[in-house]
Amino acid sequence: MPWILAVLALSATAAEPTRIDATSLATAAKLRDLALTGSEAHAIVESLTTEVGPRMAGSPNDARAVAWAENKFRELKFDRVYTEPVSFPRWVRRHESAEILTPFPQRLVVTALGASVGTGGKPLEGDVAEYSNLEALKSARAEDVRGKIVYIGNRMQRARDGSGYSPAQAARKEGAAVAARLGAKALLIRSIGTDSDRFPHTGLGVDPDAAKKDPALLAKLPRTRSGIPIVATAIPAAALSNVDADLLQHMLERSKPVRLRLNLDCGFEGEYTSANVIGEITGSERPDEVVVIGGHLDSWDLGTGAVDDGAGVAIALAAAHLLKQNGVQPRRTLRVIAYANEEQGLWGGKAYAAAHAAEVTRHILAAESDFGAERIYRIDSKVGAQALGAIDQMQQVLAPLGIERGDNADAEGPDIRAMGELGVPMVALRQDGTRYFDLHHTANDTLDKIEAKALDQNVAAYVVLAYLAAQADGDFARAPNN
Amino acid sequence: MPWILAVLALSATAAEPTRIDATSLATAAKLRDLALTGSEAHAIVESLTTEVGPRMAGSPNDARAVAWAENKFRELKFDRVYTEPVSFPRWVRRHESAEILTPFPQRLVVTALGASVGTGGKPLEGDVAEYSNLEALKSARAEDVRGKIVYIGNRMQRARDGSGYSPAQAARKEGAAVAARLGAKALLIRSIGTDSDRFPHTGLGVDPDAAKKDPALLAKLPRTRSGIPIVATAIPAAALSNVDADLLQHMLERSKPVRLRLNLDCGFEGEYTSANVIGEITGSERPDEVVVIGGHLDSWDLGTGAVDDGAGVAIALAAAHLLKQNGVQPRRTLRVIAYANEEQGLWGGKAYAAAHAAEVTRHILAAESDFGAERIYRIDSKVGAQALGAIDQMQQVLAPLGIERGDNADAEGPDIRAMGELGVPMVALRQDGTRYFDLHHTANDTLDKIEAKALDQNVAAYVVLAYLAAQADGDFARAPNN
Repeated sequence: MPWILAVLALSATAAEPTRIDATSLATAAKLRDLALTGSEAHAIVESLTTEVGPRMAGSPNDARAVAWAENKFRELKFDRVYTEPVSFPRWVRRHESAEILTPFPQRLVVTALGASVGTGGKPLEGDVAEYSNLEALKSARAEDVRGKIVYIGNRMQRARDGSGYSPAQAARKEGAAVAARLGAKALLIRSIGTDSDRFPHTGLGVDPDAAKKDPALLAKLPRTRSGIPIVATAIPAAALSNVDADLLQHMLERSKPVRLRLNLDCGFEGEYTSANVIGEITGSERPDEVVVIGGHLDSWDLGTGAVDDGAGVAIALAAAHLLKQNGVQPRRTLRVIAYANEEQGLWGGKAYAAAHAAEVTRHILAAESDFGAERIYRIDSKVGAQALGAIDQMQQVLAPLGIERGDNADAEGPDIRAMGELGVPMVALRQDGTRYFDLHHTANDTLDKIEAKALDQNVAAYVVLAYLAAQADGDFARAPNN
Repeated sequence: MPWILAVLALSATAAEPTRIDATSLATAAKLRDLALTGSEAHAIVESLTTEVGPRMAGSPNDARAVAWAENKFRELKFDRVYTEPVSFPRWVRRHESAEILTPFPQRLVVTALGASVGTGGKPLEGDVAEYSNLEALKSARAEDVRGKIVYIGNRMQRARDGSGYSPAQAARKEGAAVAARLGAKALLIRSIGTDSDRFPHTGLGVDPDAAKKDPALLAKLPRTRSGIPIVATAIPAAALSNVDADLLQHMLERSKPVRLRLNLDCGFEGEYTSANVIGEITGSERPDEVVVIGGHLDSWDLGTGAVDDGAGVAIALAAAHLLKQNGVQPRRTLRVIAYANEEQGLWGGKAYAAAHAAEVTRHILAAESDFGAERIYRIDSKVGAQALGAIDQMQQVLAPLGIERGDNADAEGPDIRAMGELGVPMVALRQDGTRYFDLHHTANDTLDKIEAKALDQNVAAYVVLAYLAAQADGDFARAPNN
């Protein structure tokens, strides 16, 4: 049965509201309190960041991270541990440097954006054309941009819910394409981050989905040996640390032209097959129905990926492990996924959804931890109306953790987005992201930024969510138009 | 007359307590309040960090910084602007990298210590021998150290008065010498800094004064063409960022040996002659008597030297400029010194004291700003007993700035230390150093860390100090045994 019919069928039969029994609620409360006394999460992220460290998709550490995750699932006594292949074009960073040549020579701290092309084996020089944001660049005249190094100076705003990210990162994901169309020879952006430290923030420099949605463009894209389209930036693209962006702007304010030299040695190199690593706690009554939690195993290469997303992987593993440790077997199967290559285009999440599309109705609920390591303050959902009461029941168990009920409008995580598009119901446990973008995609994303007690609060919330979803009488299925 | 006799003579005749008249006190209060409405200090440090940036002694930017300072003094209408030569061995940093080879390969963020020798044109490899601090290393057995890379893990403690610095930095200044005597092949230290960011803190890796005090050692030191002894580290010496030190320690905790590769390309290269840059506001009544304030013009090379010590230079220049701006001419001359090469052995301060030893009694009072850019909270002094009342008068004008009276025990700054040893009376305006060592000697020492209002408070305090010292009836001379 195609998934859409399955969802319809499920929705149609779900006349009764989904409920959670009192015994399960009491067990969830106990697991919550056990998590708060100290979970495995900090030890897991310490292990990942020490024994593997940075693990950029396709790098030599990708395979080490996969092996680490398989071992960790086994060490934590998951009932079933397996991997599923995830293939993608491999992007490599070798060297990056930038300097101001005139009016005042100074070295700039810079990092290539993911998917950037290099500068062709030698440095590139050009005068800077400055734009305050992507919109300003879009309305620029080609004669002002042609042959220049475009600089986009927009500054990300700090917010608990990370709402400053999306508007600011448009410059990162679309800037190179827009600048290239206007004839620029390279793109530099102010880092998409809320800190004022001398760390540049990397991140994907393209929007691969947009490129693939344009059939004419898609036809022209180069492909890997197995036919995967390669979406690279049209021109070399890099980010300055916020501090260096300030410096450049101070020069632009007093004197023009400002001339830069940029040297990027990076680019795509063949294809790589990594893996989603999956561990399960088998359900006692409905083992073929699964509750999915997880985080992404890959990281960028600059830091050790402690916060993004070692923390998420550790929270999910530790939450499931808490059931094992305490001899609690859920009715449904709890599936923990450490996704491959989230950073360069959500490859792991998409591969998982594609591989499991036929079993989509057996996916009772999905959630993902990928917003750092701070405390959770809210539970949002995207579930069918019949399940709203069950979400409220969960929230009552979460309330002592300081977690309030949010809305039923959106509960996406990057790797569960593709599942969500297939109709899988989702819950989002919202973490405080006030400081997340100080570290995000920088060399400073390291273990010391994580507080064990905050991780434990996350584990407590995830074990409540996962266990209660596995125990619920009824399901969470969304209406097909949701 | 030898200086010691001069000081004695001055002390002997100074029967009357030094006093400051009411008109001068009222003028000082006005200048203080004018500074708080907005001084030139932030614009000066912005200019230095933008137009010159990093200015390590002996680097190409050293000369640019000297030219900048001369221009800035002239631009601010100082009555007299001149330079005095300062020669020293030139140390050059070219490349530095480190990585853990086993048990878990990871790149480490590292910086060579100043005066370090290189690793001989190729990487050096060795197992790590860990010591918790310099004392532990001193009592180590040679057989445990021989052929190893010594790692000293002591962590600097945070304090408002920076009191954690001196005990922690012993590892940096003496570690290489001690490790070399025990047969180590290189030294690595945890950065001497209070942050938990992935920035290594550089700083001098030797104690040049100790080396020069040992005649046998001094005789063996190589010399520059003009005969200046060169004090290099005995073995390659570098600092890990605190984050990387954590990482190394996590590995040392779980598995030994930990094997490292270290590659330092740095070392001494000839001699360089820089300059102390001096600007004066000429005194109206006693122009040959001087009050000296200042900061050091050089910086390390990793950041832009905004806080260390662009701020100090800017505070001193802006304080003196405030007199010019407001048509206030002091009775004595106010001399502002931007010292050369403080970082690599206090060369500028020593050269100044040597050049002016014969005029030491005409140095009424000296102070230096070299502890960052935060607010001043205390005034300490090292003056003769007859001047304590005048210091109290100063403090009363400083009190509205939140500045309390400290003691008369110590008032050193690095560049006025040599003057102090000749008997020049000193005052220290103590800045809040709580966050200073988060940035100190790192790439993150940049303009954005400076708050203009805090700089203005410093300018207000320095203009009060300098003006009232220039106006005082009587002097501040210390007793010879002080």
